[in-house]
Amino acid sequence: MRFLGIDEVSDIALGAALLGAGGGGDPYIGKLMAIGAIKDCGPVKLIDPEEVPDDALIIPIAMMGAPTVLCEKGNGGSEYKVLYDMVSKFYGKPIYAFMPIEAGGVNSMVPIAAAAKLGLPLVDCDGMGRAFPELQMVTFTIGGVKATPMALTDEKGNSVIFQTITNKWTEDLARAVTMSCGGSVSVSLFGMDGATLKKYGVKNIVTRSENLGKAIRKLKESKDEAPEDAFLRASEGVKIFRGKIADVLRETNGAFNLGHVILDGIAEYKGRRAEVVFQNENLSAVVDGEYAATVPDLICLVDTETFAPVTTEALKYGKRVLVVGLKCFDMWRTPKGLELVGPRYFGIDTDYVPLEERMKGGAADV
Amino acid sequence: MRFLGIDEVSDIALGAALLGAGGGGDPYIGKLMAIGAIKDCGPVKLIDPEEVPDDALIIPIAMMGAPTVLCEKGNGGSEYKVLYDMVSKFYGKPIYAFMPIEAGGVNSMVPIAAAAKLGLPLVDCDGMGRAFPELQMVTFTIGGVKATPMALTDEKGNSVIFQTITNKWTEDLARAVTMSCGGSVSVSLFGMDGATLKKYGVKNIVTRSENLGKAIRKLKESKDEAPEDAFLRASEGVKIFRGKIADVLRETNGAFNLGHVILDGIAEYKGRRAEVVFQNENLSAVVDGEYAATVPDLICLVDTETFAPVTTEALKYGKRVLVVGLKCFDMWRTPKGLELVGPRYFGIDTDYVPLEERMKGGAADV
Repeated sequence: MRFLGIDEVSDIALGAALLGAGGGGDPYIGKLMAIGAIKDCGPVKLIDPEEVPDDALIIPIAMMGAPTVLCEKGNGGSEYKVLYDMVSKFYGKPIYAFMPIEAGGVNSMVPIAAAAKLGLPLVDCDGMGRAFPELQMVTFTIGGVKATPMALTDEKGNSVIFQTITNKWTEDLARAVTMSCGGSVSVSLFGMDGATLKKYGVKNIVTRSENLGKAIRKLKESKDEAPEDAFLRASEGVKIFRGKIADVLRETNGAFNLGHVILDGIAEYKGRRAEVVFQNENLSAVVDGEYAATVPDLICLVDTETFAPVTTEALKYGKRVLVVGLKCFDMWRTPKGLELVGPRYFGIDTDYVPLEERMKGGAADV
Repeated sequence: MRFLGIDEVSDIALGAALLGAGGGGDPYIGKLMAIGAIKDCGPVKLIDPEEVPDDALIIPIAMMGAPTVLCEKGNGGSEYKVLYDMVSKFYGKPIYAFMPIEAGGVNSMVPIAAAAKLGLPLVDCDGMGRAFPELQMVTFTIGGVKATPMALTDEKGNSVIFQTITNKWTEDLARAVTMSCGGSVSVSLFGMDGATLKKYGVKNIVTRSENLGKAIRKLKESKDEAPEDAFLRASEGVKIFRGKIADVLRETNGAFNLGHVILDGIAEYKGRRAEVVFQNENLSAVVDGEYAATVPDLICLVDTETFAPVTTEALKYGKRVLVVGLKCFDMWRTPKGLELVGPRYFGIDTDYVPLEERMKGGAADV
C-alpha cells in the first residue's frame, strides 16, 4: 500500500499513454482530471491486488467514447458519485475500491480521480494491460466475468443501467447510448469480487505505468546510454520503424477513431514505408508490405526526440515517430484471448504471430 | 370493474387500431398476443381510473419500435415478468395495475397480455387517447410526470433501466437502444401514482376502443343507416377524403416508419387529390393543396368497404380508403399540448387549427 500524489500521477499518465498503444485518450486531459481531484481531496491510496479481501466488491471505472470526443468533453466530476450510488445500490453493498479497466492517458486517470473524490482506494490492477476499443475486450471476459450490471452516466445527469446476456451486447447497447449522449460518458462495469480480480486481472499495471513514465521523463539524464536505447530497455520494446508521417486517414464515426497512418522511413529506415491501421488503438503495423506486428501486441508511436507517446488523435502530417512493439499480457495470446482481440476480430487478414517472432532478425535490425 | 375476455379483446383491438391513426401496429398481431395470454391465464380485470387508490403504483407497459418491426418480431411473452421485476425493485413496492400508454393495434394489447400473464388489473386509461411516435408525447409529460425510471427489455434477455433529465432524453436514449436491439423492445415507463393518473390520464379509452370496434364490426347490421353514416356517427369522425392509393413513399429508418401516401379521389372526390404524411402515425392530410387536418387531431384511413383501419405499414397501391378525422383529447389542444405534438414539432409548416374548424363547410361536404 502506498499513496499516489501529483508527481506519481504525472508519471502514471505518461506511462499509461504509452501502454494505450495509440488509444486511451490524451494523457494531458487525463492528468488534469486526476491532479485536480487530488488537489481537492488529497492523495489516493494504491493497494496491491493481493491486499484485496476475496469477497470485497471492486468496480472498474472509465470513460467510454471516441478519444477525440473524450478530449473535447472530459467529464463534469460529479459522475463518480452517481456511478457509485447506482452500482452500490444495485449490488446492495458498498464498493471496496475502484480500479482502471484499461491503461491509457484518460482511462488510467479517471479511476484515480474517482478514488480521490470518493475517498476510496485504487487497486493496482486492470483488465487489459493496454487499451482496446471495445468494452468486452478485457481479461475478465476470458474468465467468464459479466460486464453487467453496467452503470453509465453523462455530464448532464442522464444515467442508465444495463443487464445483458453477453459482454458483446453490453458493448453494443452502451455504445449506442454513448453516441446519443454526445460521444462520451462515464461508466462502471465488470464489478467483481477480490478473488476474481486476483485470478484474471493484469496486476501492478499502475506501478508499471508509473515506472515507464518515470523512465521516459529521465531518458536524457543518462550519460552512458543513448535515449533511444534507454527507452527500448525501459519499455522492453522492439523497434519496428522510424518514419515521418506522410498521410493520415482518419474518421470519427461517432463511436471510434478509425483510420490509418502512412510513414515514410527516415534515418536507418530511409526508402522504406510503413502503414499503421487503428481503431482508437493501433491494430497492425505493416513495413514494406509485411506484417511487423498486430494486436493483441502493443503498437506504440512515440516522438523521435522526446519519446512521448503519440495517440491516434494526435497524428499529424510531417511528425517524426518511432514505431515500437511491446509484448501483450500473456492471457491475450491464448486461443480465448485471440478470439476476443486477435487480428481477425478486427478484420485484419493474418493469423496472430507474436511480435518477437515476427521481428526475429526482421525490421528491428535494419 | 369488469372482465375482458376474448370477444372484448377482439373489439378493443379493432377500435384501438382506428385510434392508432395509422400507427400503433397491426391489430391482428396485437390481438394474437392478448388472446393467447387470456387463453393461458384467464380474463383480465378492467378497472375504472376512479377505482385506483391515490397512492397505488400504476405502470404503463408497451412495445417500442417501428411498427413494421413490431409486426415481424412481436415479443417473447416473458418480457412482462422481467419488466415487472425491474420496476417494482426500483420503486421498492408492488405494481398495483398496468395500463396502456397509447391506443393502437399492438400497444392497446400488450398491457392486456401483461395483465393476464401476471394476474394484475388493467386501468381503463392511457396517456394519449391515440398513438404518437415518440415516447414523451403523452399527457403525463404535460403534467410534469417523468418518463423515468424506464425499464426496457428485449426478447433475448437484455435489459436496461434509464433515468433521464427530461422525457425527450428518455426518448433519445431508449430509441438508440431499441434500434441496437433489432428495432423493437418491450418497455415500461411513466410509472405514477393513482392521483396523477386521475389528473392527467385519458380516461375510459379501453372502453371507447371496445365500443368503436363493436360498432365497426356491426356496421352492416343496420337496415336504417348506410354503413358509412353509421361509421362516422359511431367514431364521431369527419370525412376528409375518399381515394385510391396512387403512390406510397415509405422508409423505415430503423426507428420509425416515415413517408407519405398520395390518393386519387374516387366517387364524390373524383378529380381531386390528397396527400397524407406519416411518422408511424398520420401527421397531416392535405386535400388539393390545402391542409384538411393535422396532428394532434387523428387522421385515420379506413377501408371503404369494411371500414377496417389501415395502418401506415399496410398502405398499398390501388387500395381504396376513406380518410376520416377524429378530434383529439382536449389536453392536446392547449399550448403545452401543441408544443409537444403540434404540427410544427413534426416539421409541418402550419399552425394548428382544430379539425372541425378546418372542415367547416370544407372537404367534408363535397
